[in-house]
Amino acid sequence: MANLSIKPLADRVLIEPLAAETTTSSGIIIPDTAKEKPQKGTVVAVGPGTKDEPLTVKVGDSVLYGKYAGTELKLEGNEYLMMRESDILAIV
Amino acid sequence: MANLSIKPLADRVLIEPLAAETTTSSGIIIPDTAKEKPQKGTVVAVGPGTKDEPLTVKVGDSVLYGKYAGTELKLEGNEYLMMRESDILAIV
Amino acid sequence: MANLSIKPLADRVLIEPLAAETTTSSGIIIPDTAKEKPQKGTVVAVGPGTKDEPLTVKVGDSVLYGKYAGTELKLEGNEYLMMRESDILAIV
Amino acid sequence: MANLSIKPLADRVLIEPLAAETTTSSGIIIPDTAKEKPQKGTVVAVGPGTKDEPLTVKVGDSVLYGKYAGTELKLEGNEYLMMRESDILAIV
Amino acid sequence: MANLSIKPLADRVLIEPLAAETTTSSGIIIPDTAKEKPQKGTVVAVGPGTKDEPLTVKVGDSVLYGKYAGTELKLEGNEYLMMRESDILAIV
Amino acid sequence: MANLSIKPLADRVLIEPLAAETTTSSGIIIPDTAKEKPQKGTVVAVGPGTKDEPLTVKVGDSVLYGKYAGTELKLEGNEYLMMRESDILAIV
Amino acid sequence: MANLSIKPLADRVLIEPLAAETTTSSGIIIPDTAKEKPQKGTVVAVGPGTKDEPLTVKVGDSVLYGKYAGTELKLEGNEYLMMRESDILAIV
Repeated sequence: MANLSIKPLADRVLIEPLAAETTTSSGIIIPDTAKEKPQKGTVVAVGPGTKDEPLTVKVGDSVLYGKYAGTELKLEGNEYLMMRESDILAIV
Repeated sequence: MANLSIKPLADRVLIEPLAAETTTSSGIIIPDTAKEKPQKGTVVAVGPGTKDEPLTVKVGDSVLYGKYAGTELKLEGNEYLMMRESDILAIV
Repeated sequence: MANLSIKPLADRVLIEPLAAETTTSSGIIIPDTAKEKPQKGTVVAVGPGTKDEPLTVKVGDSVLYGKYAGTELKLEGNEYLMMRESDILAIV
Repeated sequence: MANLSIKPLADRVLIEPLAAETTTSSGIIIPDTAKEKPQKGTVVAVGPGTKDEPLTVKVGDSVLYGKYAGTELKLEGNEYLMMRESDILAIV
Repeated sequence: MANLSIKPLADRVLIEPLAAETTTSSGIIIPDTAKEKPQKGTVVAVGPGTKDEPLTVKVGDSVLYGKYAGTELKLEGNEYLMMRESDILAIV
Repeated sequence: MANLSIKPLADRVLIEPLAAETTTSSGIIIPDTAKEKPQKGTVVAVGPGTKDEPLTVKVGDSVLYGKYAGTELKLEGNEYLMMRESDILAIV
Repeated sequence: MANLSIKPLADRVLIEPLAAETTTSSGIIIPDTAKEKPQKGTVVAVGPGTKDEPLTVKVGDSVLYGKYAGTELKLEGNEYLMMRESDILAIV
């Protein structure tokens, strides 16, 4: 988890997705296009929240989110997802 | 019902769907693709609720929900559904 | 009307649809696929209502509802419709 | 106008549509499928209204409504339209 | 402008559209289907307004409105448009 | 800028679009259908505003607006755009 | 960053997009149509905000925004993006 100088606005949360597994449970290596998009990640930056919605998640939390949640962002060579906290399903 | 260390956010509820029956009432075994998606399940985790919506369902409640409610999640090898409490129709 | 141990949530109402007539007014028997979906039914269970919307209908009320209202539910072999009270048009 | 034992819920209004004319102004008889849907009718039952919206129309009022307003209902052999008062355009 | 016994409900306004010109500026007579729908008209009846929206336009005002605003109504042989005041663009 | 006797309603603003340039920067004359729709204009009339939204722009302001904002109106032979103030992007 | 005499309205922000790189990481020059639209830019003008939403970003801030956010504007030969502050994801 890189140390990023990024400040999400309002109720936004920056998430580093967990790398998808490249081997199936039966040990078969799956090519890149068949990899399932990860749904688990780590919170790396949080916004200040809004008056109505103080944020619940903290930096370092491991979270689950929907398959199509967020906007992909590339920062210093890594892929991140920026989403609103309401797109996060649970802390695990 | 496994003991899961998952904390749903806000008004979200995690549900373990009841396994769909694999035999019809007349005793015919139905193949996997023909199985009707279950609409009944057990609540395994609930969020803290929101200021406007304290949650009504509790862990262990048997609930009914619409056919297409929730987001599928795989946790420790099992399939779960994460949905908002408003997607739950009734406690049975 | 069976005695069901089901508790609808919030402003939901469980309705037992009136069986559709299988004979037209001129006495012709109509096959299953041509039967018009019933729009009349009996209330068999009601939710606690919400703060903003206490419920008006009671168990036992005969009600009219729109053709596509509600979610179909099968309980103990019978078909029911779960809908919000706002989908009910009138008490008859 | 039949005497109906029907109680519309909330801000709903039951309307008996005026029979569409089956002859054009030039005296040509028009077949059933070409008849324009009536847009004028008589109020035969009104709901209790809501806290925010007490109803304005009364039983017996002759009203105009949009071509596709309301849900068709058949009661004791007659066709009626159930609509919200906000779908009524004017009293004539 | 006929004297109509029609009472629009709430924030509705009845407008008599200005007859579209049947000749182009260069004097060519245009057939019926090519006539542009009028966007100018005269207010012939106004509703009582709502608590939140007292009406601004008055009977007799000449107004401009969007091309597809309102519902067409035929009263005593004439075509009118019933629209909400918010569909009126300006008084001219 | 003609002196128009038009009173926009509520939060509406009448704008005279700046004529689009008919020559490209390299001096090529472009035919009518290829002309880009202007996005700059002058405010020629403003509504009284609403209780919630007093208007910010004034008659004479030069403004920018989105390509598809507003409704086209022809007044005394000229083309204008009627739009809500919220469709105006900036004063320049 | 040019000095522009432009005043965005309400919660709008004018952004000068960062020029997209015209060479891939492996040094291949990419033609114009293949260039990825930039998602990073510098704030060059901000609106006064609204009663409900005072603005957070300031002129000079480097910001990230979604791929399709904002309306393109050409001012004095340069391309800018006008967007609402809510379309800005983060300050970097």
